[in-house]
Amino acid sequence: MPADSLKSLLTRTDLPIARIVRALSALGSATSLDLVRVAGLARSTVSMGLAELRDAGLIVEVEARQNGMGRPTVLFSLTPDSGRCAGVLLGLDEIRIAICDMAHNVLSDRSVPMARDYDPEAAFAVVRAELGADCAALGLRLSDLFGVGLAVSGPISEKGVVAVSSVLPTWSGVDLSAVFGGLGCPVHADNESHCGALAEMTWGAAIGEPDFILIKFDLGIGGAIVLDGQVRRGLNGSAAEFGHLTLDPRGALCRCGNRGCLETMAGASHLLKVAGEMSGREVGLDEFVSAAVDGHIGYRRLIEDAADIAGWGAGLVGTVLDPPLIIVAGGLAKAGELFLDRFVGSYDRHASARSATLPPERRRRFLLGRFLANDTVLGAVALVLHQQCRIA
Amino acid sequence: MPADSLKSLLTRTDLPIARIVRALSALGSATSLDLVRVAGLARSTVSMGLAELRDAGLIVEVEARQNGMGRPTVLFSLTPDSGRCAGVLLGLDEIRIAICDMAHNVLSDRSVPMARDYDPEAAFAVVRAELGADCAALGLRLSDLFGVGLAVSGPISEKGVVAVSSVLPTWSGVDLSAVFGGLGCPVHADNESHCGALAEMTWGAAIGEPDFILIKFDLGIGGAIVLDGQVRRGLNGSAAEFGHLTLDPRGALCRCGNRGCLETMAGASHLLKVAGEMSGREVGLDEFVSAAVDGHIGYRRLIEDAADIAGWGAGLVGTVLDPPLIIVAGGLAKAGELFLDRFVGSYDRHASARSATLPPERRRRFLLGRFLANDTVLGAVALVLHQQCRIA
Repeated sequence: MPADSLKSLLTRTDLPIARIVRALSALGSATSLDLVRVAGLARSTVSMGLAELRDAGLIVEVEARQNGMGRPTVLFSLTPDSGRCAGVLLGLDEIRIAICDMAHNVLSDRSVPMARDYDPEAAFAVVRAELGADCAALGLRLSDLFGVGLAVSGPISEKGVVAVSSVLPTWSGVDLSAVFGGLGCPVHADNESHCGALAEMTWGAAIGEPDFILIKFDLGIGGAIVLDGQVRRGLNGSAAEFGHLTLDPRGALCRCGNRGCLETMAGASHLLKVAGEMSGREVGLDEFVSAAVDGHIGYRRLIEDAADIAGWGAGLVGTVLDPPLIIVAGGLAKAGELFLDRFVGSYDRHASARSATLPPERRRRFLLGRFLANDTVLGAVALVLHQQCRIA
Repeated sequence: MPADSLKSLLTRTDLPIARIVRALSALGSATSLDLVRVAGLARSTVSMGLAELRDAGLIVEVEARQNGMGRPTVLFSLTPDSGRCAGVLLGLDEIRIAICDMAHNVLSDRSVPMARDYDPEAAFAVVRAELGADCAALGLRLSDLFGVGLAVSGPISEKGVVAVSSVLPTWSGVDLSAVFGGLGCPVHADNESHCGALAEMTWGAAIGEPDFILIKFDLGIGGAIVLDGQVRRGLNGSAAEFGHLTLDPRGALCRCGNRGCLETMAGASHLLKVAGEMSGREVGLDEFVSAAVDGHIGYRRLIEDAADIAGWGAGLVGTVLDPPLIIVAGGLAKAGELFLDRFVGSYDRHASARSATLPPERRRRFLLGRFLANDTVLGAVALVLHQQCRIA
């Protein structure tokens, strides 16, 4: 049965063919030359491995012509239904659970509302029951999954321990491998913004980009730094906590315990609070963004001001890293140009390497993320495929 | 003649023995196991190479005992007089020229004052004449040098082109390889703070540290980011321009063209201006720092306030990178604890991963740089040994 063969290949780290499978799962689709480079194998080894995988029905090949012309390139990808992975977002007030095939087609995706400050045991019970039910609906057991990726709203160590921080008070110091080890399949975990970057690297706006930063503007603000194709975690897994850049040391108190963080000024939680006061009722993020794009002058101004401040924060990151590509993600990015134009303009007034002084080929690029609605769960799936940060 | 043999080995990039020599020159001294790791060679290859180098008189070996106890470890280093490198700082109003042996013993070191905004041709003429004279005094020709490292006060590309920026207006867009190609030996170039980081990595406070940041507090403020043992340059060579972190978008105009940069508040140029107004005469950096350490209450307060603001800026870098080690360098760092204590305290109030919330083994370390007086020229020498950023 293909799924079992592939599963055993994905977990046999020592075999060349396993390296090909992992490279294919990470890249989505690839030429044999891509595989030589990414898997670090000889051409002949890649050719033999591909033949073996094709004979077993584990891969499909398509011919593609660049610009529709010239000699066709042969692209290989894993047979979509040859395996399944799950991505789980442990959010502040929801647990979102998705199951994908090897081509990141989403087979199921739903959100279970949770009371704020839910505890790890409750999370495990929900994931086991709900993910188990979703698997059953697809004719699978939990143990049939290649793995489960957990995306967590906060910094965690490479061993899967949630950092002691007031951002996730009920989860501080929790060992996720101990909590989720009972799922019966491999478990991987990382910060949700790091997962978002993995999704964009694997299938989205950052394919083939070894160096970029991602900034995610949602209820909170997070981010990721990718250098040499690796998500950089820092000493405590809290690298790229862009929402907690201190812009005003005497500003409003932030949930992190510092004052004047970017998030307190440009996080959607703050914007929705002001929008709610203006409108006399609770306003949701998608509704807020749609109304602004449709011309609501108060909401537009809130987004413009947030983009100005966000550009300052991103400019600080630019002064530190001088990155070639900046991907703007999260629910606020759904405002598109309304947010991005002012964001880029503000970035350029605050970063040390400014576009006006650079030749065109040396200017950094700004792109909207491709998965503004579900990068986190998709990224948790990508985490399984990349086999980074395995904790159980 | 040893120097010639070594020189030819350093430039033969393909030979295992050349990789050993480069690793030794970069590490200063190393065990054979260090060399296996750094040079990426088999143990047997390293052993044979070391025997060959010892027979040729190019290396010396010393026995060292950890804590004076146990089995001695054998450390290898290049014979100090087997070769010479030059480090040149192209500063804002001086050109500093040093010649070192392979053990970074400084054989000559002097500064030639230059009028502000001196042009590249004038710089080349001074370097050729003065470095040539210093070589002659040591019985060398310029062409006997392994190479010359140039440390430049501003961002430059990996090809040695000075970035278009108002920091070095007369040098914008200058191709250093065209200007200094006529020296008759290999020329390498990088930003002065990047060179400072190389000096600390090679012989100083960051030996064996693959990941750290360096922040240099001098007349201006610069820095370097080292990840996986590599100085990170960013898209335009302007990564780690920490002095140009925008702390106040409505603040004082900076020489870089932005407002409210860290450097305008905590750069020694600013501090000396205030100190000069207070004292009614011009005050130099070393004099300022000594007087503050000796108890001058006005100067102390200036340094304390600068340390508070510098800690905020460094905290922003910490929120981006979560680095395990922060090295504080530059003339202001000569104030020692007077600067460092408040700097660390302020860092902790502004960075996202705060020491109080971390277990002791996860807390970042802060160290003063080892070469507060000459890290830049030493780093330019290290640049030659590391063979990074060769431009001519």
